[in-house]
Amino acid sequence: MSLPAEFHDIAKRVNNWGRWGADDEIGTLNLITDEVVRAAAAGIRTGRRVALALPLKEDGVQAGLIPGRINPLHTMVQINQELFGPGTVACSDDAVTMGLQCGTHWDALTHVSHSGRIYNGRPATSIAAHTGAQFSGIDKTGPVVSRGVLLDVAATKGVDRLPGDHAVTPEDLAEAEEFGRVTVRAGDIVLVRTGQIQVYLAGDKHGYGFPSPGLSVRTPEWFHARDVAAVANDTLTFEIFPPEHENLWLPVHALDLVEMGMLQGQNWNLETLSTACGQEGRYSFLLSAMPEPFAGATGTPVAPVAIF
Amino acid sequence: MSLPAEFHDIAKRVNNWGRWGADDEIGTLNLITDEVVRAAAAGIRTGRRVALALPLKEDGVQAGLIPGRINPLHTMVQINQELFGPGTVACSDDAVTMGLQCGTHWDALTHVSHSGRIYNGRPATSIAAHTGAQFSGIDKTGPVVSRGVLLDVAATKGVDRLPGDHAVTPEDLAEAEEFGRVTVRAGDIVLVRTGQIQVYLAGDKHGYGFPSPGLSVRTPEWFHARDVAAVANDTLTFEIFPPEHENLWLPVHALDLVEMGMLQGQNWNLETLSTACGQEGRYSFLLSAMPEPFAGATGTPVAPVAIF
Amino acid sequence: MSLPAEFHDIAKRVNNWGRWGADDEIGTLNLITDEVVRAAAAGIRTGRRVALALPLKEDGVQAGLIPGRINPLHTMVQINQELFGPGTVACSDDAVTMGLQCGTHWDALTHVSHSGRIYNGRPATSIAAHTGAQFSGIDKTGPVVSRGVLLDVAATKGVDRLPGDHAVTPEDLAEAEEFGRVTVRAGDIVLVRTGQIQVYLAGDKHGYGFPSPGLSVRTPEWFHARDVAAVANDTLTFEIFPPEHENLWLPVHALDLVEMGMLQGQNWNLETLSTACGQEGRYSFLLSAMPEPFAGATGTPVAPVAIF
Amino acid sequence: MSLPAEFHDIAKRVNNWGRWGADDEIGTLNLITDEVVRAAAAGIRTGRRVALALPLKEDGVQAGLIPGRINPLHTMVQINQELFGPGTVACSDDAVTMGLQCGTHWDALTHVSHSGRIYNGRPATSIAAHTGAQFSGIDKTGPVVSRGVLLDVAATKGVDRLPGDHAVTPEDLAEAEEFGRVTVRAGDIVLVRTGQIQVYLAGDKHGYGFPSPGLSVRTPEWFHARDVAAVANDTLTFEIFPPEHENLWLPVHALDLVEMGMLQGQNWNLETLSTACGQEGRYSFLLSAMPEPFAGATGTPVAPVAIF
Repeated sequence: MSLPAEFHDIAKRVNNWGRWGADDEIGTLNLITDEVVRAAAAGIRTGRRVALALPLKEDGVQAGLIPGRINPLHTMVQINQELFGPGTVACSDDAVTMGLQCGTHWDALTHVSHSGRIYNGRPATSIAAHTGAQFSGIDKTGPVVSRGVLLDVAATKGVDRLPGDHAVTPEDLAEAEEFGRVTVRAGDIVLVRTGQIQVYLAGDKHGYGFPSPGLSVRTPEWFHARDVAAVANDTLTFEIFPPEHENLWLPVHALDLVEMGMLQGQNWNLETLSTACGQEGRYSFLLSAMPEPFAGATGTPVAPVAIF
Repeated sequence: MSLPAEFHDIAKRVNNWGRWGADDEIGTLNLITDEVVRAAAAGIRTGRRVALALPLKEDGVQAGLIPGRINPLHTMVQINQELFGPGTVACSDDAVTMGLQCGTHWDALTHVSHSGRIYNGRPATSIAAHTGAQFSGIDKTGPVVSRGVLLDVAATKGVDRLPGDHAVTPEDLAEAEEFGRVTVRAGDIVLVRTGQIQVYLAGDKHGYGFPSPGLSVRTPEWFHARDVAAVANDTLTFEIFPPEHENLWLPVHALDLVEMGMLQGQNWNLETLSTACGQEGRYSFLLSAMPEPFAGATGTPVAPVAIF
Repeated sequence: MSLPAEFHDIAKRVNNWGRWGADDEIGTLNLITDEVVRAAAAGIRTGRRVALALPLKEDGVQAGLIPGRINPLHTMVQINQELFGPGTVACSDDAVTMGLQCGTHWDALTHVSHSGRIYNGRPATSIAAHTGAQFSGIDKTGPVVSRGVLLDVAATKGVDRLPGDHAVTPEDLAEAEEFGRVTVRAGDIVLVRTGQIQVYLAGDKHGYGFPSPGLSVRTPEWFHARDVAAVANDTLTFEIFPPEHENLWLPVHALDLVEMGMLQGQNWNLETLSTACGQEGRYSFLLSAMPEPFAGATGTPVAPVAIF
Repeated sequence: MSLPAEFHDIAKRVNNWGRWGADDEIGTLNLITDEVVRAAAAGIRTGRRVALALPLKEDGVQAGLIPGRINPLHTMVQINQELFGPGTVACSDDAVTMGLQCGTHWDALTHVSHSGRIYNGRPATSIAAHTGAQFSGIDKTGPVVSRGVLLDVAATKGVDRLPGDHAVTPEDLAEAEEFGRVTVRAGDIVLVRTGQIQVYLAGDKHGYGFPSPGLSVRTPEWFHARDVAAVANDTLTFEIFPPEHENLWLPVHALDLVEMGMLQGQNWNLETLSTACGQEGRYSFLLSAMPEPFAGATGTPVAPVAIF
């Protein structure tokens, strides 16, 4: 089995290999210039802040379907330990074991490969157990701060959440721009709200993961045309799952991460943000979504914040 | 052994228990209002961004001195795994085990207790193995975004880094305000640069930890008088180590975290920030320093970013 | 709520505190003398060996019901890594994170406490996050090798497995002795087969854990009367679950571990052993069931082997 | 760089590929027959038991030299937690993260590869992140119980421990047989004592690892000629380190594990065993050294016990 011709056609159209030089490891994050950030900051009006991360806990979104991607196991290594003798100040310390993509996270560009290649044409074999990703590890991104734009597709459609078989199309995204009276610009980080995370928040982890609305294989071209810097949403799989085309699994991952070199975010809680955007009457904000710089990692937990 | 009278005297003067109600779990973070953030955002001029986190890696700052606080062990759980059959898009996933306070981090208010109490007078026994911290866990903070102010004590003194026995005093902080032509205000997050992290960056982990310059036991009153929201610096222990007074260990921790309810940050890399502040001619900026919301945790890795 | 009078009555009758001195940390393991082992070895006839541990894997017996007790997460830290240069011998190394009681395991005597006490009357507070169990940690046991006796209650009853509401009684144990033509002696390690592990082996983790046959609260007296050294079985909870008496949870754990100071084993796969005992016509063997000596641990994985 | 001709010459002479069929995954463990075990059991005289594992603890033998191979991080996930309400029986549970080869351990046959191959000629690429070792994982071994023989080279030479540059030769092994009045037979598990572990026990982890006495590249032929089932010793690297021949790293690993398919054990504490053998006047015993059956693992902690 190999990827179909249609996939390769789109791949050619959105490919960014070499666009920022043969040595580039960060792809579309290059589009976030100081000017982009300055303009985004100039849009701040009220100082309101909205956090977008789910709590990191053992009872997190992972339902055991993705081998090795465990929810955080939080443990105490010290509890009120009087390190310097009885009656002294006492310390508590903790440790955690977790899959880096288990909760609200960024995929690094190396999270997927296809046809033996990762972003910028490098060999997929440059990812190894002892080093992780030699190129394009999540520690390479630098600051991920830009204008954020919420494309609230669910609100645009007038529903709480999109049905499980809804592939979010370019037309949906354009409609959501209109709904939010906002135009996606170069360097933006786009957040696409489906409402699907409500299923998890209501306690149904399995239903959250599958079936799930998500991005259509047609969206990468839309993001590419607008020179978007990164995209995140409120689903487990990012793209619609099960997929639109039989036997074409994770095509959006392959197009976004490998071909375009564009960061993807998943399991972002956009519910409070949706309310805030409605109240503020603005669907853009300054977004800080800093990766934890795990050396050579193919993903990272992230605690994004929108500032209005 | 118990804590000396001098300690208890200062404790009384900086104590914030009850100030934001008996139910409060976040202490001085209450001082970060929308107005504070709006004003900070209004100060953004160039859009330049500076990241302040050290890479998270097995060869991190921990030298094995603090039991249980291990550097990140990064492992791969999938490498280019064709989950859906040969020739399909291939996935790489990773997992990590780490001490939550091992690298660039925030201490939660619960990181230390003294005399059986944590912030707001709650019993230290409210921290347990199965739940972590029942109150004031790091997941409770909400967004940590405010004006950041760099008090560059090392640059003020005209040295690369302060000597290992230098306790940073209120006078040093005031001098650094003058140097930076900045006045610390209510709700600010103050970053104090000693230059000590250069020792780690040069490869000497043991020398980094000990002896180390750091904050004097006299600084909590200074921060309290200015209603600072949080303080971070570029050392392993935050306060001078070994301590100023024999047998008075970690007094600054006890005053900041327990009495004031003020977040502390350690192992922040302030070197590039120092250069940037000099170049920009400004020692204040918008600072986003979002905790990863580990449920019940007494600390968290953080990837702070300063925006000019 | 406190433990009922009936519990305390039994507790008095089986209590071994002080029996091997005030400093003792291993309880009934003291009953395994060289003579006991010599006699057990003298019974070896064929050299046949039967392993009793379940594989340790992410898809192990834990179904997420016991917080923090995670199945093993096995990860690679090196894969065919040519540590000394291209063309040299290549190494593969792995790491694991797991609950120590997640699979086939021994409970240490400290795994439970009641009324603030652990075995030998020590305070339960001697278990702490930074040290684990200060007394009676699993690393204290020394060699756990003795005569093993299979009491095959399921086979005795002529059923594949006992029903979920079957509390294994002293009468059942005596019947199984007769069935196996074996008499339990001082120092023996007794394995009680219910057949319940078949539920797990058939893929039903939830059904395995609950409802489950298991030992009756009346069995500790039977084991105490015979001076048994340790007991293990093929269930998740060891004792019948839900329990025999409303609001009396884990009484067998409290009696065996705290009062008697007798090791308990769970999730032992006794299926092949049952077959082997039938074929060999003997229900006793030399049993080696060595704890991994985790310092201060309250449990350990174990890979027991029966030698005929 | 490739392996030298001398290496390939020895490799040919000790190669066991195909000897137990093309499907074999356990190599020389095939040599442990029921008869071998029966004979070993018949040699038990006193019932004395000696445990050979080092405690598993954060302050274990790893000194940070081998990336990813961390000492056990033991943490508590519950401490005296009254799971079923106040006053009920309270539970303590723990979790661990560790390198599987960090302490007293067995290397699985897959721990090393050379020239792209593992034992029985299979491709090294059959080891992957998501599955671990597809063939010859440590979970495949079955029971590892046989006659153990201590070849006490240090005692034979009349020294506490061999010097760091001493390569243990076939002649040394033969001398130690004579010293112990024992003849190594087919199916034996041979323990070679150098005394090097005393360096670790005295607190010098770095000195323990390097320089270290260990097995000479000439020993695999000696073990092969005698059809030994497995070999373990009391060093970090098993073979002499640094190696005997410049640029020939880990040749013994490659010969034992890949060519012969013979398990190797490291960091075994043979000090008490040495004393016991002297006192018993016997250098053979029944040895139980059961791998923990981690699925697909390339190594495992082991808690071996010798029974006299």
